[in-house]
Amino acid sequence: MSTPPVGIIMGSQSDWPTLREAATLLDELGIPYEARIVSAHRTPDRLWEYGKTAVDRGLHVIIAGAGGAAHLPGMMASKTRVPVIGVPVLTKALSGVDSLYSILQMPKGFPVATMAIGAPGAANAALMAAGILALNDPALAVRLDAWRAALSASIPESPTDD
Amino acid sequence: MSTPPVGIIMGSQSDWPTLREAATLLDELGIPYEARIVSAHRTPDRLWEYGKTAVDRGLHVIIAGAGGAAHLPGMMASKTRVPVIGVPVLTKALSGVDSLYSILQMPKGFPVATMAIGAPGAANAALMAAGILALNDPALAVRLDAWRAALSASIPESPTDD
Amino acid sequence: MSTPPVGIIMGSQSDWPTLREAATLLDELGIPYEARIVSAHRTPDRLWEYGKTAVDRGLHVIIAGAGGAAHLPGMMASKTRVPVIGVPVLTKALSGVDSLYSILQMPKGFPVATMAIGAPGAANAALMAAGILALNDPALAVRLDAWRAALSASIPESPTDD
Amino acid sequence: MSTPPVGIIMGSQSDWPTLREAATLLDELGIPYEARIVSAHRTPDRLWEYGKTAVDRGLHVIIAGAGGAAHLPGMMASKTRVPVIGVPVLTKALSGVDSLYSILQMPKGFPVATMAIGAPGAANAALMAAGILALNDPALAVRLDAWRAALSASIPESPTDD
Amino acid sequence: MSTPPVGIIMGSQSDWPTLREAATLLDELGIPYEARIVSAHRTPDRLWEYGKTAVDRGLHVIIAGAGGAAHLPGMMASKTRVPVIGVPVLTKALSGVDSLYSILQMPKGFPVATMAIGAPGAANAALMAAGILALNDPALAVRLDAWRAALSASIPESPTDD
Amino acid sequence: MSTPPVGIIMGSQSDWPTLREAATLLDELGIPYEARIVSAHRTPDRLWEYGKTAVDRGLHVIIAGAGGAAHLPGMMASKTRVPVIGVPVLTKALSGVDSLYSILQMPKGFPVATMAIGAPGAANAALMAAGILALNDPALAVRLDAWRAALSASIPESPTDD
Amino acid sequence: MSTPPVGIIMGSQSDWPTLREAATLLDELGIPYEARIVSAHRTPDRLWEYGKTAVDRGLHVIIAGAGGAAHLPGMMASKTRVPVIGVPVLTKALSGVDSLYSILQMPKGFPVATMAIGAPGAANAALMAAGILALNDPALAVRLDAWRAALSASIPESPTDD
Amino acid sequence: MSTPPVGIIMGSQSDWPTLREAATLLDELGIPYEARIVSAHRTPDRLWEYGKTAVDRGLHVIIAGAGGAAHLPGMMASKTRVPVIGVPVLTKALSGVDSLYSILQMPKGFPVATMAIGAPGAANAALMAAGILALNDPALAVRLDAWRAALSASIPESPTDD
Repeated sequence: MSTPPVGIIMGSQSDWPTLREAATLLDELGIPYEARIVSAHRTPDRLWEYGKTAVDRGLHVIIAGAGGAAHLPGMMASKTRVPVIGVPVLTKALSGVDSLYSILQMPKGFPVATMAIGAPGAANAALMAAGILALNDPALAVRLDAWRAALSASIPESPTDD
Repeated sequence: MSTPPVGIIMGSQSDWPTLREAATLLDELGIPYEARIVSAHRTPDRLWEYGKTAVDRGLHVIIAGAGGAAHLPGMMASKTRVPVIGVPVLTKALSGVDSLYSILQMPKGFPVATMAIGAPGAANAALMAAGILALNDPALAVRLDAWRAALSASIPESPTDD
Repeated sequence: MSTPPVGIIMGSQSDWPTLREAATLLDELGIPYEARIVSAHRTPDRLWEYGKTAVDRGLHVIIAGAGGAAHLPGMMASKTRVPVIGVPVLTKALSGVDSLYSILQMPKGFPVATMAIGAPGAANAALMAAGILALNDPALAVRLDAWRAALSASIPESPTDD
Repeated sequence: MSTPPVGIIMGSQSDWPTLREAATLLDELGIPYEARIVSAHRTPDRLWEYGKTAVDRGLHVIIAGAGGAAHLPGMMASKTRVPVIGVPVLTKALSGVDSLYSILQMPKGFPVATMAIGAPGAANAALMAAGILALNDPALAVRLDAWRAALSASIPESPTDD
Repeated sequence: MSTPPVGIIMGSQSDWPTLREAATLLDELGIPYEARIVSAHRTPDRLWEYGKTAVDRGLHVIIAGAGGAAHLPGMMASKTRVPVIGVPVLTKALSGVDSLYSILQMPKGFPVATMAIGAPGAANAALMAAGILALNDPALAVRLDAWRAALSASIPESPTDD
Repeated sequence: MSTPPVGIIMGSQSDWPTLREAATLLDELGIPYEARIVSAHRTPDRLWEYGKTAVDRGLHVIIAGAGGAAHLPGMMASKTRVPVIGVPVLTKALSGVDSLYSILQMPKGFPVATMAIGAPGAANAALMAAGILALNDPALAVRLDAWRAALSASIPESPTDD
Repeated sequence: MSTPPVGIIMGSQSDWPTLREAATLLDELGIPYEARIVSAHRTPDRLWEYGKTAVDRGLHVIIAGAGGAAHLPGMMASKTRVPVIGVPVLTKALSGVDSLYSILQMPKGFPVATMAIGAPGAANAALMAAGILALNDPALAVRLDAWRAALSASIPESPTDD
Repeated sequence: MSTPPVGIIMGSQSDWPTLREAATLLDELGIPYEARIVSAHRTPDRLWEYGKTAVDRGLHVIIAGAGGAAHLPGMMASKTRVPVIGVPVLTKALSGVDSLYSILQMPKGFPVATMAIGAPGAANAALMAAGILALNDPALAVRLDAWRAALSASIPESPTDD
């Protein structure tokens, strides 16, 4: 089985309801992906392996979601030059601000493309991946343009329209 | 003159000391770029024009920095499917948290790849751009790998080493 | 149909339950208004058009509500000199502080009259609009004074009064 | 001496370096104003008097700046229907967030048009006042449009332009 | 009817569920009180009157609770030298941090004895009032000591005790 | 030597520049006080002794300032029913918000009358102490009223007055 | 009955649902413990006694949980050199940030090993205690390694695995 | 050369001014240590190696300091059961709150004993290490008790003492 262009990874099973938004949007756009649980703390060797082989396997974008001390996106960015898009998952005490800071505030050298906190961020991670892939995939570019046009066309004029 | 693959835009002249970090790093990596002031509020028509022509001009990545009510990155993302990387500029009263929230919290449909607040984020914007361009530029991929390897090699073993 | 003096615009259908508070209060005060969905990101051209024609259409106040990276009020303020009143809509992760900073922290040149977060802010946007209009509408000034007097008169002396 | 259309009030002499930005901009736009120290806590009777007479004196807009537990703008809004524009002054420990919340979070009934924290907010208070006054002053509308056009025209194309 | 030593005032009927905690504890300690709604914004003249007459009426402590832009405690402190204890009421968007900053950050000259946010703060306002009154009421001092001793005695040794 | 009515205690020598504001104001009002370093963590037995003897020694008010994990005011409140006024001292990383939360958020049973962060809070602690003592000291009440009147009288009409 | 190596203490009965997570994990790892309510404010003498006797009783680690102005962990650290692990309990208004700051920001001299806010922090307190005890208990080291290995082994490859 | 009981590691040379506080205090207490730069992102293999060999090398405590997206302490905790003490280093934009959240909010399974932000936290990390080591080193216990006693004895009675 060939490697899809996008890998969705998450630190925990409990992140899936958030990251599923990314998967759904990739499906809408016809972009193949794989979804894996890769915990920075519980399965660090899996993280290592995933990062070390990302280029050779042919991954083009990695979407990484995590919550709390969310080390997965940044650690993955240290292991591969494949672009990493980070999704801060909502948390109970700190509303995902802990996730956000842990993902966003990377030192010079290892960027993570951070998205909005929670489900909207996961959906946008898929769209960012699509924008990157579309740079070299004219057919996808057409589909992405169409998706964006449809979104704009769906907005009614007035909030009281049926 | 042909369009370079990366456009660096900023909301104000005063953002240049931050965004220059991106320019410097693109220079180091041998990636051509253009640098423009595009104010979302003061020159909205310039923003419109820049966004509307981005695909046709051949831009592959847009790095957009702004501070305060930082609308430039998100508005640019609404005008083009070219990937937009956002850099929140430090601000006086709110330390760039206002910039961050204005750039990060985009609604579903219009992702901005948000970087860390301030200069480290600007440098990382260039590296993220490099990672995206390297997907289809093997020579750049080699240069990026070398840059990363050199960064790692530069770290001394001990903090008290000369 | 003539243009009413007040335009209520919002970034999304989901903002209507908040902005409806403004509409209700305008109704109470006998001030005509129109309500439109104008998404800064999904319908930027609609925003452009609305802003460009605001003066000529005769709008006197624009009430603009949005949540998250809430660019609508500030972008509207960049397109027209008609006073813009901003209403930060509550958000899930950040309780509307993201909306607030995106609306409030405008650079010199483009003020947005920011109201409290959520429904109380929407109601107050209507009252602020009324105060502005009343400067040149003596009958409305009388109605506004009466509304304020009635509010004050409605407060019981003791919290345990029936 | 006739009352000017704009009153600038502030809670303390120490707020003047911030509020002076408003005065300077009103001067640029040719809008007369008066500047007064009206402390909500130290001179509450002055606040009462100022608010009670605002309509009859002919004030059209009140710009009120204060820091910390910044009660002046909101208390003024409770005493008069003349539109009150609030400017949160920067503070030492809390960077003006205390000023902001005290001014912004007004209950239903008494809006304060809150501006950005600090000097940019003071300048914008003057522009908001101008926008309100311009609704019934065509000459001022022309001057305000010119000021905005000049601001836009002053932005260079590139950050490295001289 | 003679004036009780403690006045409980609040900005709104909706603050009563919080402030009732103060009333309940004053009842437990046998301290008479009156409870009034005094809105800084909706009934400023009532606030003025309450403050101006506080000393002559014989009030010894004023407990003032309010939420949001909570101006009541601070404005009362500006009108009377009777000690004012402030209770920040929980709010929807900002969890009472807005109330807290508006009450706490008073300028030099007008202290408000600020309590914890919400119901525990209201109960403690009553205990602080008791501590103040006990300075000159030996019988109350005995009751307060007993209340404190009973609180300490009520703590079981182990969390799994019945 | 008899015990003065007010005890100023602080967690560290480094808190004195802040707490000295309280001492200065007590001097202005003619209120005797003692100043002691009582560290909750470094000299807990001193804290115990100070609290246990406060009533018998005749202390009427304790002003307690501390920074960071500021346990002194709350622990003192647990040892004595003498009213404790807390002053949150500014800190380097968290601007005194850590001090504030540690002092303010006391559980039901042990109130601390919390003042504004830093020097203004220290000055206000002295004024709150004066307000409490004035309840039973008519001469002090006169002096306090005079101090307040002088403060109000010192405010110029205009910020540009000499 | 001999003293167990670990003491779990908490400021209030209401903290037990959080701290029980620590107890459960200690049970899993076969580490004896005692659980006590020790309120810094309501039972300060119990705190004193517990701290003063900790070394002689043979306690090796103290897990201390508290909420709000959470003084228990830090005060215990001032009374004994036995390592204190602090657990910030979630709170209503401030989501446990008050607890966190009160526990974390200890001055030089009295460290508290602070864990994450809420239940995950309580579980981790037990694991930190285990790590400390395992330094001199080879059998526990084996059990701890096994617990960690089992945790890692329990992570499925894919979020959609059954 | 034998392995010392304490390893001080940090993410960057720039963290040394903070972590040196830990080294200084370990020196005062006569505890040997090693100091190494181990960057989670720039030298992840060094981190892996350090963690994998920590038990066998005989390390008893690891003090790990880092700033921003501070992944070092948590990643180290995932690689070894040796207790990890985390020191959040102050940062420019977010004052170390980003460092704090990245270190503190670890998921169940991998505790990091988090200290106060900045230099006081680094000093306390050394004292926490000492407390852990003293559990099985009676001579160190005596030195630690003496250090604590000297700290307490150094506090003057009054802030105005020479």
